[in-house]
Amino acid sequence: MNIQASQPIGVFDSGFGGLTVVRELLNAMPGEDIVYLGDSARVPYGIKSPETIRRFAREDTSFLNGFQPKLVVVACNTATATAIDAVRRTAKAPVVDVITPGAKAALKAATKGSPIGVIATQATASSGAYTRAIHAIDPSREVMTVACPLLVPIVEEGRDENDPIVTHVLCEYLCDLQRLRPGALILGCTHYPMLAGAIGKLMGPSTTLVSSAAAAAHEAQLVLTQMNLLKKTSTQACGSLTCYTTDSPQRFASLVERFGGHKAKAVEYVGTDELENFSRNQK
Amino acid sequence: MNIQASQPIGVFDSGFGGLTVVRELLNAMPGEDIVYLGDSARVPYGIKSPETIRRFAREDTSFLNGFQPKLVVVACNTATATAIDAVRRTAKAPVVDVITPGAKAALKAATKGSPIGVIATQATASSGAYTRAIHAIDPSREVMTVACPLLVPIVEEGRDENDPIVTHVLCEYLCDLQRLRPGALILGCTHYPMLAGAIGKLMGPSTTLVSSAAAAAHEAQLVLTQMNLLKKTSTQACGSLTCYTTDSPQRFASLVERFGGHKAKAVEYVGTDELENFSRNQK
Repeated sequence: MNIQASQPIGVFDSGFGGLTVVRELLNAMPGEDIVYLGDSARVPYGIKSPETIRRFAREDTSFLNGFQPKLVVVACNTATATAIDAVRRTAKAPVVDVITPGAKAALKAATKGSPIGVIATQATASSGAYTRAIHAIDPSREVMTVACPLLVPIVEEGRDENDPIVTHVLCEYLCDLQRLRPGALILGCTHYPMLAGAIGKLMGPSTTLVSSAAAAAHEAQLVLTQMNLLKKTSTQACGSLTCYTTDSPQRFASLVERFGGHKAKAVEYVGTDELENFSRNQK
Repeated sequence: MNIQASQPIGVFDSGFGGLTVVRELLNAMPGEDIVYLGDSARVPYGIKSPETIRRFAREDTSFLNGFQPKLVVVACNTATATAIDAVRRTAKAPVVDVITPGAKAALKAATKGSPIGVIATQATASSGAYTRAIHAIDPSREVMTVACPLLVPIVEEGRDENDPIVTHVLCEYLCDLQRLRPGALILGCTHYPMLAGAIGKLMGPSTTLVSSAAAAAHEAQLVLTQMNLLKKTSTQACGSLTCYTTDSPQRFASLVERFGGHKAKAVEYVGTDELENFSRNQK
């Protein structure tokens, strides 16, 4: 692999939720070019079986390989939890996921050995990936993971944090976590930062919320710095964000700024049949 | 087309919700063989763009063509609302959808010209398909359609009808419909019959709930009778239900009886790449 600093960072997610990771990447490294793939035609991943999620993640990675990225960021907790090994085997560049950085950041935030809470999709929660990542660093740390299947649809419906239904659903999901009083709570899905205000209010000031988006962006910057692959640009120069989606590019384009915080240079369509072909041809 | 009574009925849906239609089909015609395709790897359809839903529906129909069905039942309101023309062009047999029968049944139930309510997914509501189907029969009938995006995830999460969150969400969605006092309310998504008790309680006794599942099964029986294609069997003989799913067959198998009310002879996996190939080869 002869990787150049001028190559883009490849990012994928099951939909547009991973754009919250793009926002953090561009905030940390505004000069970088980013190619983002949102698999909106097959969203959500979090309710599907591990075999299916692994196939999708392999196809997403194969597609990004075509752009010769210097780094691949898996901006999807479900794909990380279920398929990170398949992604690493498929990618032709170093891979940064959202779970290991999130776990590290939570251990840093949750001082004095206090317990750590995790909220996530059904697939991420069932995988136990956050618990494993935390225990790899601190085997005795208490971890409580709660699956919150309704939060993704709630964010996708565009509901406000002050919506009474949002409050009601959060109260139910967070009930046991409130009693635990964790030092840190990991928002273990890229959609959840959109509800951070309401979650923070319910958990109280003794719990620090950890967004895996920010932690993953920090890790990506660290990896690129260590490999001497950060793009050398003047301070004014802005990188470009190019998005691909497997569903309607019009609909996707309307969400890029809300979630990604930046305008896209282009939003293009790529069929899931093309993703499957990319994957087949790279085998 | 030389169709025989011994051929199966083909049914497809975005996931397992359409099994509520299978339940009604087998209750009405217990001797019939059914081949069911649930596209669980790409569920839900209701939040996706019309172009993508049309592509999926064409692929699903092409797959069913391989079983030479005597009738194709589109057990998915979203696919019907968005893609029924594409299905009719692709299918090699007569097609029964869930919307026209539902609209007819609602007009029958809503006596004295009373208004008709419809609850549905975002895609079905946006398409205006129920309003068009009702106005094709009675152009002056008042119709109110409300999109209820959270109801599918709520049913998929396995929440009980008496769950306070279910009540809270339904109260919000049904608020304007309660004021309208419709003579009939169409449950315009195959998941919704699972919440019929709670919906009925909120709407009160003057509103008749119309399940498109039962109406579609009735229509299917009518079409087969008219074409003299009902299977001639002894009263004891039971037809077979064979299911295909694009996600884990184990997971799907565990839902067949709950939603379909009958045991499956087999639950098999079929990849979405295979569906795409079927569709390509039949063009």
